[in-house]
Amino acid sequence: MTVSQTKETVTTVAAKTAKTAPPAAVPTMAVQPATTTPPQTRKITGYAAKSRSATLVPWTYDAAPLGSDDVEIEISHCGVCHSDLHTLDEGWGPTTFPVIVGHEIVGRISAVGPHVKHLSVGDRVGVGAQCGACLNCQRCVRGRDNVCPKGVFTYNATHPEGHAAYGGYADAVRVPSAYAFKIPESLPSDMAAPLLCAGITVFAPLKKHWIPNARVGVVGIGGLGHLAIQFARALGASEVVALSKSDRKRKDATTLGATRFVTLKSAEDFKANADSLDLIVCTASSHEMDWDSYFTLLDAGGKFVVVGIPEAPISLSLDKLIFAERSLVGSLIGARGDIVEMLEFAAKHNVRPWIEKMPMTDVNTAIARLRKGDVSYRFVLEN
Amino acid sequence: MTVSQTKETVTTVAAKTAKTAPPAAVPTMAVQPATTTPPQTRKITGYAAKSRSATLVPWTYDAAPLGSDDVEIEISHCGVCHSDLHTLDEGWGPTTFPVIVGHEIVGRISAVGPHVKHLSVGDRVGVGAQCGACLNCQRCVRGRDNVCPKGVFTYNATHPEGHAAYGGYADAVRVPSAYAFKIPESLPSDMAAPLLCAGITVFAPLKKHWIPNARVGVVGIGGLGHLAIQFARALGASEVVALSKSDRKRKDATTLGATRFVTLKSAEDFKANADSLDLIVCTASSHEMDWDSYFTLLDAGGKFVVVGIPEAPISLSLDKLIFAERSLVGSLIGARGDIVEMLEFAAKHNVRPWIEKMPMTDVNTAIARLRKGDVSYRFVLEN
Repeated sequence: MTVSQTKETVTTVAAKTAKTAPPAAVPTMAVQPATTTPPQTRKITGYAAKSRSATLVPWTYDAAPLGSDDVEIEISHCGVCHSDLHTLDEGWGPTTFPVIVGHEIVGRISAVGPHVKHLSVGDRVGVGAQCGACLNCQRCVRGRDNVCPKGVFTYNATHPEGHAAYGGYADAVRVPSAYAFKIPESLPSDMAAPLLCAGITVFAPLKKHWIPNARVGVVGIGGLGHLAIQFARALGASEVVALSKSDRKRKDATTLGATRFVTLKSAEDFKANADSLDLIVCTASSHEMDWDSYFTLLDAGGKFVVVGIPEAPISLSLDKLIFAERSLVGSLIGARGDIVEMLEFAAKHNVRPWIEKMPMTDVNTAIARLRKGDVSYRFVLEN
Repeated sequence: MTVSQTKETVTTVAAKTAKTAPPAAVPTMAVQPATTTPPQTRKITGYAAKSRSATLVPWTYDAAPLGSDDVEIEISHCGVCHSDLHTLDEGWGPTTFPVIVGHEIVGRISAVGPHVKHLSVGDRVGVGAQCGACLNCQRCVRGRDNVCPKGVFTYNATHPEGHAAYGGYADAVRVPSAYAFKIPESLPSDMAAPLLCAGITVFAPLKKHWIPNARVGVVGIGGLGHLAIQFARALGASEVVALSKSDRKRKDATTLGATRFVTLKSAEDFKANADSLDLIVCTASSHEMDWDSYFTLLDAGGKFVVVGIPEAPISLSLDKLIFAERSLVGSLIGARGDIVEMLEFAAKHNVRPWIEKMPMTDVNTAIARLRKGDVSYRFVLEN
């Protein structure tokens, strides 16, 4: 299938979407009583890959009946995350095809299950990379539902009831209401979308590992990193240092709020910046990174937080961790509590992604450009 | 040189040591006024290696003049640490020969520099793996002197004044008074010696990374591990789990205070114990360990503390850290404040190393047996 053919088909889908549920037309105050019988069936159309790295094509699936605690969302926007690529390319392991990716979803609620109390039809909500958890295990009840062993990712995953989870490159999605988050009034939907994954992935570890007057480093100034700079600045870091292999993003980083930009090319560059940071959020995820050198940028007791999963094991020397008592810390998106807080914080402190909007019909263009690294800084697809 | 020849020579040295400064003969109350002019020169005899992995032979060096803040210690006991072996074998990099190793030193002060206020001649003190730091940098003034960039190790190192640091397999040692720690009355000297390195190396990270009601794991039930079990129990852990590759030490671990002993041989063993611990102190340091599997023993947010430095880089998969937000944490011996606290804590809570005492004349036997792993659980050499 050629690109032009794809575009044509996709336009049809988008038009259909707009017809069935134009987001702007849903009145925000139209509250549907919780007792109303929800629609039991629904066809959802999205852009699916049918095999590894394939062009996305329109594909319709039968959404499972809306569960008692579920909501149905008419999607207005969906951000394009690197995880989407990893999944399409099976970089993290096998993908179940067809797959509809996309987990930076914003839209309006079009139906709620009978037990849903905190959300109503018409509410503007977002869904991130996770759309389910048991909510009863020790991790969940302690507010760490993001690492619930029964957590369900938003796509390439299976709900406990047995039906597949399909993502946000689509006209709609049905998810447990626990994972639909109200978007603050002052956050436009296109701006909110990338916060649901890129934003929370950097905000959560910054908050958890924060120390007052922190000197924060951000490795990788891309979709996640450009938000990490803004969050770190807004949280009150004494320094926000953008760490990059090239000079290319110096100006952008400064505009975003970095107090310093450091180009890390040589051993001398690392040496000149040794022991200078308390907390590093590493948004790069190449297994070929020189991890040991990056660790040396941390002062004693510093934490190097990894949020991206390399596609192969990494090699490191423990002496760099031991001799300055540094930590290598894993962080996974964020818990429900973190997401609610992050959205409010971003709204209040004017943390906004830099986005390039495209009609969802152009999804394959977005994917192709992301594959080449040709994005500043986040694509947001719009229905 | 044969073993018997070595022993003969060594006996002479030991006899000489005993003659010049029999520890028991120094009255504990004989306080030397700080203004007394200290002895300026001193020959110290110890057991030195003259080349990599060589048999230790008696060797005498001219100790640098006692500095204003230094103390001189007549050594009564010195523990035998794996670090001694690593240094003798150049496993961590080049060693400057001749080297006198040994950094679990206990003895009585025989001279103090004119500025020394807190210690007096006759005091029973211990010296661990570190014998110097700048005491003025941010790390030092914040109580992290153990990671001072100008820290001086007790052997195979150089004091800022330019003279070499020689260790505790000897009749005496001169060190900065800041790194000589009074031994609590109730701790016998032979028991105190292993606490100065093995003890502090596990106590410091337990204290720093403790959470109330912690479930603590100890990897490697040896010189460090057998103390970690005792400290964890005394600190109030809800569980202390001894983790070992074999069943050999099950009984010992239980006697030491482990609430559970887990043999980790197969993938099933790891699976059966997944997510079960909050804090693991890993005293093993083989780069060939299956790190990823060990990480899975930690519950969400758990910390895997490494205190031993492998002789080669390690390989790991970040997903094991990321998906349960675990940390890999480096820890280096302990700071001065930690050592003081650890000694008091051990004295009070009856934390005692299990030792095998040998006359210092038998140092080569101790080294040979340690090399084979034939030790339960710490050799302590006695003058």
